[in-house]
Amino acid sequence: MKVAILGVGLIGGSIGMAARRRGDAEVHGYDSDPRVLQAALSLGAIDAVAADANAAAEGADVVFVAGPVGALQELVDVALDSAPSDCVVSDVGSTKRVLAGAGSDERFIGGHPLAGAETAGVEHAREDLFEGATWYLTPARGSTAGVLYERLHRLLTSFGARPTAIDPDTHDRLMACVSHLPHVLANLLVAQASGLVGAEGSPRLPAVGPSFRDATRVAGANSAIWTDIYISNADALIAGMDQLAARLAAVRAALVSGDAPAVTAWNERARADREALLGAGLTGGPLHELRASVPNRPGVVADIALALGGEGVNIADMALSPSEDNRQGVVALWIGGDEHAERAQRLIAQLGFPVVRA
Amino acid sequence: MKVAILGVGLIGGSIGMAARRRGDAEVHGYDSDPRVLQAALSLGAIDAVAADANAAAEGADVVFVAGPVGALQELVDVALDSAPSDCVVSDVGSTKRVLAGAGSDERFIGGHPLAGAETAGVEHAREDLFEGATWYLTPARGSTAGVLYERLHRLLTSFGARPTAIDPDTHDRLMACVSHLPHVLANLLVAQASGLVGAEGSPRLPAVGPSFRDATRVAGANSAIWTDIYISNADALIAGMDQLAARLAAVRAALVSGDAPAVTAWNERARADREALLGAGLTGGPLHELRASVPNRPGVVADIALALGGEGVNIADMALSPSEDNRQGVVALWIGGDEHAERAQRLIAQLGFPVVRA
Repeated sequence: MKVAILGVGLIGGSIGMAARRRGDAEVHGYDSDPRVLQAALSLGAIDAVAADANAAAEGADVVFVAGPVGALQELVDVALDSAPSDCVVSDVGSTKRVLAGAGSDERFIGGHPLAGAETAGVEHAREDLFEGATWYLTPARGSTAGVLYERLHRLLTSFGARPTAIDPDTHDRLMACVSHLPHVLANLLVAQASGLVGAEGSPRLPAVGPSFRDATRVAGANSAIWTDIYISNADALIAGMDQLAARLAAVRAALVSGDAPAVTAWNERARADREALLGAGLTGGPLHELRASVPNRPGVVADIALALGGEGVNIADMALSPSEDNRQGVVALWIGGDEHAERAQRLIAQLGFPVVRA
Repeated sequence: MKVAILGVGLIGGSIGMAARRRGDAEVHGYDSDPRVLQAALSLGAIDAVAADANAAAEGADVVFVAGPVGALQELVDVALDSAPSDCVVSDVGSTKRVLAGAGSDERFIGGHPLAGAETAGVEHAREDLFEGATWYLTPARGSTAGVLYERLHRLLTSFGARPTAIDPDTHDRLMACVSHLPHVLANLLVAQASGLVGAEGSPRLPAVGPSFRDATRVAGANSAIWTDIYISNADALIAGMDQLAARLAAVRAALVSGDAPAVTAWNERARADREALLGAGLTGGPLHELRASVPNRPGVVADIALALGGEGVNIADMALSPSEDNRQGVVALWIGGDEHAERAQRLIAQLGFPVVRA
């Protein structure tokens, strides 16, 4: 099987490594940056360097287009021009409608692996990057190229990924809601806080607990990636923003009228929604939140993690909130399942740290 | 010195313990729940049980009102009625304009310690709860009761707290922005995502990276506390929501027109704002974000924390993001200072985990 990869950065390089691990694939790579291409070769991400994108795609069974967002359309077109009539061509872009709507060639099946978004560069490529990761695929409705979909699906499964068919519109609305919108809100919150403390002459915020810190962790994420994402998914993101504005207006109305029962009901629905979305599925049991008050010194997190790890308790999620002067803080831990949560609480208390169920 | 505490839960009990630690204070407590009052006595949070709020305040030098939000006004009135003319009366409510505007008695100085918000109950009271914590105080402008302010300030400093004078309006706007608004947005985001995945028939979200998880950690926070907070700070919160809606509309306009440079500029400002707000002040150096890809098993966090702790590298902030099937994940770490960040990166790489600067 010949696998061609156009753009051998983190994702493309990891695809190459995962394909080569199979033992039955010959991986040909092309990249507009010759140094990246040579690095991919020496790191074992590809078997051979192609002279150009056409050469890479010629005779291929599968082509992955993994270049930057701005170059995707052109590379997909080249691949479809040069690849055989029974070749499947896919991409890894983080929004899916642009390419899905561009052509009617049934050999193209858009893709988006949910992995590696935090890093970049072929030097971080790994053959197990996609282990356990959802990999969205956007086959055209009514497509007759079932054999191509099946080939792509099997290949991704052999990478350890979980191929999941989704229509491009749903995909982009989902990403707008769970990724792009939280990034927008993080930016808005830091801007708002900055205006507030700036106006009061204070250069920075007091330590006010974890909510602001958590909500703004992704503020100002890498512009080289995120401007493209915002622009390419603009309409789904705008729709999400409009929905959010409407929800905001509804809460505002409850606050204006001082309607405490409505506020409580709204808050309780949010609790149930969060549990349903993040709780049961991730851990095989309801998530419990523990909060431990600890001195903020090197070693405390290790002590807690070791104590829990030593008794087989996995930490599903964790957040540290240091106090303003860094002397103490709160460690929030989310543990799946009643029994493990109780065990964790006991172990942390035995370490001498006050700990409560939140 | 006689210190009276009206409401001996987590905060009131911790005030009592911190005051008793001084050695020169006799702490009298009152609580509407007799069991709580007895628990406070047996835990050493108070020296004596008062028959009622009046009796507690009589002859006191300092009165702290630490009851539930709904009872604050009444307890403050009782305290001012019964306390001597040279007694300072303070409270610990999380919004400050209601009480500050209620009376013209110069003996009252509102307060709000930024500690203990995550837990409740006198059984979790600690004499060091306020170590290093900002403790906002809202003296009336032009107040002639300087000696009372000084007494309160010195007492709080002896608790390890950092008393900080602020006008009630600024306090409530600040809390609206950095605490109440992030909670509102967390609720809105989970509701929106829930509607989306529900409509598509999927019971839960895919694992899509840390931004949604971080932004929604506080969704559906304890209604018994938060409904009161939302309602009592409604106007400042509404003003913050309106500002946020205006900022949202501005970004929307840039997206509608596809103005990539404007989107980039907005995102870069957010990066600078976040660094200014959260970075330098907390750690004595710029914060660096590291992202390590790790298998999601018990012990991994401990290995990393131990390695860093062993070489004196403090973790200022941390977030775990497990993959959908819990087999692997990303550990994000924020480390203060160039040298420590480099050391941390090297140590994590030595453990065999791919790690990059984000």
